[in-house]
Amino acid sequence: MATEIIFGHLEDVSVGDSFVNYKAMNKVGVHRSSMGGISGRAKDGADSVVISGGYENDSDQGDVIVYTGQGGRNKGGKHDKDQTLTLGNAALVQNLLNAQPVRVIRGEDRKNSFAPASGYRYDGLYRVESYWSEKRVDGFAIWRFRLEQLVATNTIPQPIKKSSKKAIPLGNPSPERVETTVQRVVRDSALSKSLKLHYQHLCQVCDTTIETNSGPYAEAAHITPLGAPHNGPDIWENILCLCPNHHVMFDLGVFSVADDLSLLGITGLITTEEGHAPSLVHLEYHRNHYYKKLIQPLDKG
Amino acid sequence: MATEIIFGHLEDVSVGDSFVNYKAMNKVGVHRSSMGGISGRAKDGADSVVISGGYENDSDQGDVIVYTGQGGRNKGGKHDKDQTLTLGNAALVQNLLNAQPVRVIRGEDRKNSFAPASGYRYDGLYRVESYWSEKRVDGFAIWRFRLEQLVATNTIPQPIKKSSKKAIPLGNPSPERVETTVQRVVRDSALSKSLKLHYQHLCQVCDTTIETNSGPYAEAAHITPLGAPHNGPDIWENILCLCPNHHVMFDLGVFSVADDLSLLGITGLITTEEGHAPSLVHLEYHRNHYYKKLIQPLDKG
Repeated sequence: MATEIIFGHLEDVSVGDSFVNYKAMNKVGVHRSSMGGISGRAKDGADSVVISGGYENDSDQGDVIVYTGQGGRNKGGKHDKDQTLTLGNAALVQNLLNAQPVRVIRGEDRKNSFAPASGYRYDGLYRVESYWSEKRVDGFAIWRFRLEQLVATNTIPQPIKKSSKKAIPLGNPSPERVETTVQRVVRDSALSKSLKLHYQHLCQVCDTTIETNSGPYAEAAHITPLGAPHNGPDIWENILCLCPNHHVMFDLGVFSVADDLSLLGITGLITTEEGHAPSLVHLEYHRNHYYKKLIQPLDKG
Repeated sequence: MATEIIFGHLEDVSVGDSFVNYKAMNKVGVHRSSMGGISGRAKDGADSVVISGGYENDSDQGDVIVYTGQGGRNKGGKHDKDQTLTLGNAALVQNLLNAQPVRVIRGEDRKNSFAPASGYRYDGLYRVESYWSEKRVDGFAIWRFRLEQLVATNTIPQPIKKSSKKAIPLGNPSPERVETTVQRVVRDSALSKSLKLHYQHLCQVCDTTIETNSGPYAEAAHITPLGAPHNGPDIWENILCLCPNHHVMFDLGVFSVADDLSLLGITGLITTEEGHAPSLVHLEYHRNHYYKKLIQPLDKG
């Protein structure tokens, strides 16, 4: 089925629908891969993933899933090399870059309280919130993806109403398309507000700020992310004050920070104000998990 | 009660709790203002708002509330001047700039199906998604705020677990604080992906892109926003390809775009590629609703 990849809900499949096997899912298109857990294309993104307990590193909290990438295992299922950022793994990264949702299907798994008792169940849309590299106990590297459930309330804009005053003569807005809208989310916190004030909202990388008529704007970037599985603390030492551009670049691993506060991946250094010293423990965590050039210098698969 | 403003949930108040009147809400601190609908300080942000049908311009869809600012009315409740971006209105803008949540309390209102039958009910946390200016039918300007419900799933990071491997020796992470975390959200769509490709992910304002090891990153900015009450269409003519910095600036009304595509508020112009022409209708909508310098040139209250 080399047809166009459809992101988001499908017309004929409802959240909660069950399927006996991969073939049944393939037939309706909810998961088009006949075997693999990730359906999609490296260049275009992943339209669906199946979580079925086949991977001991997966973690399912219902609304948040830490999904382990594919590859690195031999035919017997044993890890014998590093996973690479190719195929389905590369596809999931595209979902993050392009804010595309991924359908999540849970398969039978007695160890997972969110899994169905048998077969497979379509459990709706998730967004790829972040991805990073981790070393397994056996030393092999895996890629992990944090998937967050998209809840109708915040995430789906209202469809254009029929009662809208004027027809805008520039095209045919398609509510089905709009429904697949997802977002880049910037985590912030009460504590980070005080740090931004400490830096007068100047970016610690480029020294710029965004001046609005109601005051300056900057973003707080947690070095070790908040939330599972990183569980970074919400403390000053784990936060940088950045402009939106450098925040995106930091979260995507375009650059990282060395112990001497020089930047890796781009030129420059993190400027600090008295009273704020980024934690070396957390900077190392970021380098080891997020800094892509360090993790995979040349490996493009 | 000139104590510190507490953003987020309060320890002793649960979502769904009822209160007979303002005095009862003031006593537990869920809404500290004794009369006004907005509690908070212009400089620090708003900790709570009451929606109770007192304002005909309010619109309540449950998970999304379009809340009208305060002021502009005489003692009889009749509009006799423009609302200004001061007091409670200025406070709500700070919530947006600093990603602080606001407690929403609904009061009795027979015309609102989401309102309680009597008294007041604490309905949880919302984020200030955007704000803009509008002209009423009588010609007076009002400020409006789109509030979106924060749902536990996506928005609240997991508290630090006791079982976390190592105690990080840099402070005492406070889960209660973390729980008040809210976010800046970037809406994106399937259609906007194609527009970003059309521009090779170069910002139409500053011509930069963010290069990641998995491809370039840019953001799609809807000129007339998607979603109620704007209901902008998801079509190319209503989208700009911007870097995160200029996206934030555009959404906050730091700059807008004239019909000749020159920038207002900052120097420069919107560059366009053949095949994409931003709609003049939508550019005008943005100027009239979002461009703060046009709307309130000198008025700081």
